Parts: sequence; C-alpha cells; structure tokens
Amino acid sequence: MKELSPLQKARYQYQPKLPGMLRNGISEICVKEGAATQSVADQEKIAALFPNTYGKKEITFEKGTNTSVAKKQVVGVILSGGQAPGGHNVVSGLYDALKATNKDNVLIGFKGGPSGLIEDKYIIFDDEYIDQFRNTGGFDIIGSGRTKLETEEQFAIATEVCKKHGVTAIVIIGGDDSNTNAGILAEYFAAHNTGVQVIGCPKTIDGDLKNEDIECSFGFDTATKTYSELIGNIERDANSAKKYWHFIKVMGRSASHVALECALETQPNICLIGEEVAAKKMSLSQIANQIADSVVARSNKGMNFGVAIIPEGIVEFVPEFGKLIAEINELLAGSKADAFNALDSWADKYAFIEKGLTKESMAVFALLPESIQQQLFLERDPHGNVQVSLIESEKLFAELVGNILKDRKAKGEFNGKFGTQHHFFGYEGRCAFPSNFDADYCYSLGYNAFMLIQYGFNGYLSKVSNLSKPAEQWVAGGMPITKMMNIERRHGEDKPVIRKALVELDGAPFKYFEAHRDEWAVETCFTFPGAIQYYGPAEVCDLTTRTLALEKSK
Amino acid sequence: MKELSPLQKARYQYQPKLPGMLRNGISEICVKEGAATQSVADQEKIAALFPNTYGKKEITFEKGTNTSVAKKQVVGVILSGGQAPGGHNVVSGLYDALKATNKDNVLIGFKGGPSGLIEDKYIIFDDEYIDQFRNTGGFDIIGSGRTKLETEEQFAIATEVCKKHGVTAIVIIGGDDSNTNAGILAEYFAAHNTGVQVIGCPKTIDGDLKNEDIECSFGFDTATKTYSELIGNIERDANSAKKYWHFIKVMGRSASHVALECALETQPNICLIGEEVAAKKMSLSQIANQIADSVVARSNKGMNFGVAIIPEGIVEFVPEFGKLIAEINELLAGSKADAFNALDSWADKYAFIEKGLTKESMAVFALLPESIQQQLFLERDPHGNVQVSLIESEKLFAELVGNILKDRKAKGEFNGKFGTQHHFFGYEGRCAFPSNFDADYCYSLGYNAFMLIQYGFNGYLSKVSNLSKPAEQWVAGGMPITKMMNIERRHGEDKPVIRKALVELDGAPFKYFEAHRDEWAVETCFTFPGAIQYYGPAEVCDLTTRTLALEKSK
Repeated sequence: MKELSPLQKARYQYQPKLPGMLRNGISEICVKEGAATQSVADQEKIAALFPNTYGKKEITFEKGTNTSVAKKQVVGVILSGGQAPGGHNVVSGLYDALKATNKDNVLIGFKGGPSGLIEDKYIIFDDEYIDQFRNTGGFDIIGSGRTKLETEEQFAIATEVCKKHGVTAIVIIGGDDSNTNAGILAEYFAAHNTGVQVIGCPKTIDGDLKNEDIECSFGFDTATKTYSELIGNIERDANSAKKYWHFIKVMGRSASHVALECALETQPNICLIGEEVAAKKMSLSQIANQIADSVVARSNKGMNFGVAIIPEGIVEFVPEFGKLIAEINELLAGSKADAFNALDSWADKYAFIEKGLTKESMAVFALLPESIQQQLFLERDPHGNVQVSLIESEKLFAELVGNILKDRKAKGEFNGKFGTQHHFFGYEGRCAFPSNFDADYCYSLGYNAFMLIQYGFNGYLSKVSNLSKPAEQWVAGGMPITKMMNIERRHGEDKPVIRKALVELDGAPFKYFEAHRDEWAVETCFTFPGAIQYYGPAEVCDLTTRTLALEKSK
Repeated sequence: MKELSPLQKARYQYQPKLPGMLRNGISEICVKEGAATQSVADQEKIAALFPNTYGKKEITFEKGTNTSVAKKQVVGVILSGGQAPGGHNVVSGLYDALKATNKDNVLIGFKGGPSGLIEDKYIIFDDEYIDQFRNTGGFDIIGSGRTKLETEEQFAIATEVCKKHGVTAIVIIGGDDSNTNAGILAEYFAAHNTGVQVIGCPKTIDGDLKNEDIECSFGFDTATKTYSELIGNIERDANSAKKYWHFIKVMGRSASHVALECALETQPNICLIGEEVAAKKMSLSQIANQIADSVVARSNKGMNFGVAIIPEGIVEFVPEFGKLIAEINELLAGSKADAFNALDSWADKYAFIEKGLTKESMAVFALLPESIQQQLFLERDPHGNVQVSLIESEKLFAELVGNILKDRKAKGEFNGKFGTQHHFFGYEGRCAFPSNFDADYCYSLGYNAFMLIQYGFNGYLSKVSNLSKPAEQWVAGGMPITKMMNIERRHGEDKPVIRKALVELDGAPFKYFEAHRDEWAVETCFTFPGAIQYYGPAEVCDLTTRTLALEKSK
C-alpha cells in the first residue's frame, strides 16, 4: 500500500511562483522579439547545418494581449538522462499552461526517456494523475532514459509517431547533449515540414549546462543543498568528535560545479576543483601534499580532524593519471592481456606492469594504494579499458595523504593523528523534493515552454532568467538552441553541440573560494546549512545557490 | 572566518517548548512523590550495591509553590559518547533553569567528555557563549569523549575537582553505559558524603536506551529522520531510473531500532532486523535468499530495482558468522599467526584456512566474497582479532544476493537484471540541527534536570514522558537510575547495568513491519519523507517517530 509522507501531502498544496509577466493569465501574455542570434562560435558551420532554425530571434514574454493562433495543441514531453529535482514541476507547469489555454489540448508523456517516443510508449496526462506529482522529486511521473535521439532513422520514426498522435510539439527536458539533440530534431522537423515544434528545458544537477543565456540548469539548487546539508552535518560531527578527517566525494564527473557550490555553502578545509587541477597540470602527489599540508597545519593547532570535498571526476583531470590510464589500456589491448592474465601472483603481475609502463607512468602507478592498482588491472570494461569511474577517489586521496603523513612523521614533521572516514553523495540528492527555488523555476520553465509552443517557436530553449531575484522579477522567454552551439570533435567527427560549462577559474564563484580557502584549510570555518526548508522565513527557504548569487553580483 | 547559515540564524530564534507543568515559572514548580522503586531485576544484589541510592521514589513535577531549598548551585555538565542531535539543548535548558532560579548559580562545562572532569578541563557558561549553540546540532559546545568514569580512583579525583569548584551537582548526558556509571558515581558521592548530586540524561541515536520509564533517548528522532530523508530520496531515484538495487547500511551495531524506524518511514523492499536474525538463528544464506526472492518477484513484475536497509551490526547477529569469527580468532591466536603470515599467495593462505576451520565454518567462509575473506584475515586489531565492525555488510549482502541470482539464472529461475549501489548513513545524522521534537525534548530534559538538582535528588535520570502527545501534555519528573538496572555478565564479571533495549519482536513497531513487509518486498510501496522541516504545518514539523507512535498506541 502506498503511503504519503506528511511533507508530500503538504507539498501538494504548494503553488509554485511564476515570473510576474506570466501571472496575468494566458490571455495577457504577448511576445516581444529581440535581436536575431548567432551561434557562440563556428557561425558559418552551424548556420549551414541548421538552415531552418539558425539565426532566429531571442524572445521574451510580457504583459499584453495574447496574439497566438488558436489551434488544438497535442504536446509530447520527454524526460532525458539522470534525475534532477523539479522535473515533475516542468511537466505540471507545461500541463497547466496547456490546459489553461484550451481544455481540449492534450499532453502526452513518452515513457522511459527518448526511447518512449521511438517505441511509442506513452500516457496521456489528466488532472488526477498529474496532481500526484506536483512539487515532488524524481522522474517517476513518466520515467527517464539515456537513449540518444540523433539518427535520421530515429527522427523518421519519431515523425511517424507524432503524426499518429497528431503531436504538434515535443518538449525535451534534459542536459547539454539532450538539448543539442533537441536542436537537431527541431531542424529535422522543420526541414521535413512536419509541423512539429521542439522546445528544450535545461536540466542537470551537475550545473554544467549554463551560459550567457541560461543562468542555471534546474536541479542544481536542490541537489547541492542536499549534499551541503550532509557535509555540514559531517563537519559538525568532525568538530565535535575531533578525531576524523572525512573525505567526501560528490557527484559531478565532467565539471566541478557541485563540489564548488558545496564548498561555498559549507567552508570545508579542502575542496578540489577538477578544472584547476587540469589548468595547473597538477600531479596526484601535488594534490595529496596540498591536503597533507592542511592536515599538518591543523594538527599543529591541536585539530586532528577536517573535511575534504572531492569531485567525482577528479582523477580524470590529472594529466599524469590520464597518461597512465592510456598506457594501461595499450599494455593490455587485445591479445596482449592473455600474457598478463596467465600470471598467477600479484608480484608477477606487478613485474609485468613495471616492464610495460613508461618510467613516468610507473612512478604514478607506484604511488597508488594496492587496492586501486589491482582495480586498474582487474576490473576492465568489455573493451578491455580501465573503468576510471569505478575508482573511489575519496579513498585514493585519503590513502595518498596517509602515506605522505607517514613519511613526514618519520622525518619528525608531523606528530598528530590521521584517522579517516569516506563518503559519497550522489543518489541522495537527485530525487529530493525540489526546493522552493527549483519548484518555482521548473514550473515556470514548463509554463513558459508551452507559451513558446503556442506562439509557434521551434528549436528554442525555454529560458527563465534574473533568477537571483524574487520570482516576481524573473524574465521569461526563449533562446534559439543554435545560439548556444559550437563545433566540437566527438568520436573523431566534427559535431554541433552545446558547449559544456566548466568551472571558470576567473569566475566569481571560484575567485571567492580561492580568496578564502587558505584560511579554511587551517582554521575551522565550517558552516552548517542544515536540511532544505520549504517553509519559514524567505531567507531560509527561498534563496538559491551561492554560485548564482556570486555570478550575478559580478 | 566563521559564517552562520540562514537556518542557523533562524534557529537561534526558536523557543523550545517545555512540558505544560514547567511553563509557569520556577517559583511555580513543586514535586509530587510517587511510589518507592525497585530495580527491574536482581533486586537484592542491586540494593546491596547501592545502599544509599536504591529504592528511592519516582517523582513528577506539577504546578504549585516551589519548596526547594535556596542555595547557590554550581552544576557541572558532561557530554559522553557519540554525538546525538539535541545535546546543546540539554545544556541550554539546564542553563536557563539554573539562571532563572538564581542568577548567581554557575554552570560549568567539563570538556571533551568524562575525562574533562578528571583532568579538570572546563569552561564556565555565560549567555553569550550558550546563545551560539541554542537549537544547533553537534556536541562542539564542550566536546564529548568516550572515557568511562567507573573506577574508585577516578571517583576520588572527581570528588576533588568538585570540591575545588564548589560543584553541587553533575549532569551526565549519555547512553546506557554512561548513565549506569552516573548511577555508580551518585552512590559513591552519597556514600562519601560529598554533597554532590548526579543526574543523568538519556542520549543515543541508536534508540537502545528506553524502557517502561524512558520512552525514548534523544537524538533518535532527528537521526532517523535524516537517514529516512536520504533513503526516501534514493527510493525515488530507484523508482525513476529503474536500474539499481540500493543496499543501504544504517548506523546501529547492538540494536536495529534505527533500521526499523527508517523502514517504517520509507517502506523499503527489504529491511533486516538483527534481533530477528538472532532469534530465528538465520544463516547468511537464508538472509541472502530472502532478499533474492524479493529481487526475483519484483523482476517478474518488470521491476529490476529496489531498496534494502541493512543495520550496521547485522553480521554479529548471525550465529554461524559469530562461530566463524571465533574460529578465525582461535586459528590465528598468538604465534599461530606466524605460519599463516609466512605464506605468500592467497591460494596457499586459503588452503591453510580450509585446514584450520571446522567444516561448518568453512562452508560459511566459502560463501563470502573474496574481498571480505581477505579482510577477515588481513585486517585484524592489535590483539589479532577480526575487526567485525570493518565489514561492509551492505556490500557483503549485495554480493551474496548476486551470487544466488547467478545460480538461479543458470537454472532459468531468474531472467532479470541485478545492478547494485551501496550506501552507509551514520555520521550524516548525528549532528543535524535537532528536529523540533528533539529541540523541545532536550531542552525539557535539561530544564527538568536542574529542577531535580534544586530539589536535592541524587542518582536520578531526568525523565520527560507522554512524548507522543503535544509538548503541553508532556510529563516531567525523575526516575532513580537503580530502578532501570539489572545484573549482567561483562568481561567475566557480574555488573549492575541499565539493560540495553533491543527491538522487541512482539512489540508494536516490529509487528507493524512484519504485517506489511511481504507486500513491500514485492510491490513498490516507497514513502518519501523528505528533509526535516523546522517550520510549517505541525504535522510536517512536530511529529516524532513511528516507533514511538506505535509503541504508545499499544
């Protein structure tokens, strides 16, 4: 028997806040066109690839008579990729605008991600169903999936499915890749005169889908608040028990926005930033020594405890580690693995490895704890490649630091204790009840997405901006997806893609962190954010991230 | 630079709720004496051990003229053992009652746990200092520690330290062991006419300090709400992504109250209860098969995902596992380890083990994943014993279930997928901002503890009951610690101790779980509690645990 928690029941009553300009009722929303757009780079190539959808105008909505064409809309919605808090609100905002415009309009949910469109697996939303999901976390309303819509063949099937249902528009809720594909699908639909529009919505807890137009992706606020709650609790525990260094890994493989935001919220002793490691070409040993310096400095002040935040993808940013992985993959490629596998003891295998690696890579390999050395050689993927994502980097750095401290102790440079605990936070935050910010932002994105559809736009991203201000002052509109594209090399081919946003080392969030981290490394400056609040004073329950506040205060 | 989070600032404004009878001001609190008490068992032995503090009356406070003797009180407070949310509120409640009674009264905090009393490390509280800690998590107000106060020598030093400061009473905030020792210290102080009183307060997130007098220990509410938030989020993620079974270990070694409460809050597919495993003498294989049955049944319904809660101490409840550990300890005792350590390869070591263990224990050992087999032999404590607490039981059961499913697949009994993720939640919950319940309960315990001191009671536990009702209806009073004692065999000696409360298999919480778990194992009945709320509707922010509600509804 399903049971609803008290919070879930209470959240059903929450009415998400729309931008002021969308609050006057459907009949009072009109379009203001802005300037024509160009892609952020590679304009000629992108223009050539998107003849039907390139160079469109950016638009904003404002109060005024609704001049859109009255026709029955049948909209399909798809959730793509990893869960992010607020997805259900995008759908409910979309549904509410669609039904407010015309109660005969239909919202179809394609199930299990983009594959639902290809396989024609769907549900049709009604009030009763959608009301169960308002202001809740998760993507279980229709499920999600990681199938990519990118081939002509898929597009042709999608066209047939749309025709069958009379679909007039598709809304794709996803990250940078999914929105890139939304742009390509929009172009296909336009080129083939299908009459189907495509609108994207920016989703990802990783925070790496943002640019001069998109201030942040949804879910980042709630996920980082959840991780920060836990990190703050652990900091308080560390400061009470005074006996452990906690190494905390947080989700985020290709960018360190999550780690950085958590650091700004909790002021830990250490936070590694992948983009900095890559820019400075830092070695594992340099990183570990930097952490060890903090351990020693704190120990000298009587504090044998601390907290270090490690982004999930950190080792992939370390140049020498990338080289090591490439050499291992080469060393065991194809039938070369047979000779290795035939060896019985780890000692023999180690000798084989020592012979096969370059001196530089062997030095890196030798640094690693044995468990990780073995993991690199024993747990490879079906193609025989090292599975970097399996490496428990929180344990790796704890061990590397421990080894350095043993050396320093032997030299009389360290007299303290170093006990460690490890944590990994990822799944804990992807499906939390959306914060008020994400609930409002997502509902607005969905509502706004329908207005873009109603006004006939195709290949646009639903855009809500001015997000560091109260919702009343938010600005709703749309941005051509092609504007955000550039050409990148992917799997040996030039592809038009939305550029992934990495942590900018000259950006305000990193600069703030950089200006404070030396103090945080030595003193105890922990901040305890506590659990996400949905009720209470506005400064407790309505503020968004430090990252956004700092970026907007530029 | 320290920074306060918005929630921390807001929580400073929270005024904890006292039981109605303590709300009329200090001058309007009088004592109502109840019946004389007896220990729960072994009455003669306990009476003989506690001639000065045995058989006292239970007492409650009520509205009426305060008849306590006016004298200057100097109270020392000690935090003992692991952190639990609300400790700071016990101290602030104690401080407020003490200062309201006489502004010249003094509250001394002994630092770093019971050792602070012996080593005379202390601070003296004032308004400014204590105000920084109101309604916050952690024990950092004075720190905590695990030193046990139990020897005559320690007591003699404690007496000297008390004399030096003019201490009239000590409040010990701790679990069953610490409160046992509080009772012994009270007897010592009385026997030696020191004039120092001792009052205990029931703390532990594990929930295993409760009985017919103490409805629950503080911290259990907040910690289980924090873990349940995370488990609910993971359930929602599992139900959205539909691709993983999550094995979630929660803190609690000697009792499974935490796991049970989390299960009642979140309705997972599986929750193991150590006490049941022990009572039914279940084997590892039986437990793993039970989980595998759920995996298969759900897979047959198209659901290749689920959530299993594993109590931290589960393997210690499995009889055959206990036997295996004892045999390993015997096998490698003293110099016998040398022969084992001299062996080079794991294959040789395995052969040695096979020869040394009984057939039954070898069968259990053979079931274990190799990583855990090696851990049992390689990572032993300074006495050469297996470190059971290091065993990652969430990974152990995930692997055992995986192996069973492979067999079943080979036999055509399982056609699904079984991907796993692992989590451990412990440190995340011990220092959360106390829930309103814990903030109120703890403040009341502290306030009440001072009233017990003021009225001259010694060897009492601060008792606040009727906790499943609104705070207005709570009942404040005291219970002689000796009433909760019995004699148990510890380290080869008969000792008077407070009996640890295990999960009762005929108790209402377990019965509720038992009545529903078959459905939960097969269907998806997940409940999503969300983050602890400190504001909002009362049913969202003021309810305590399911465990307590069920126990009180008996």
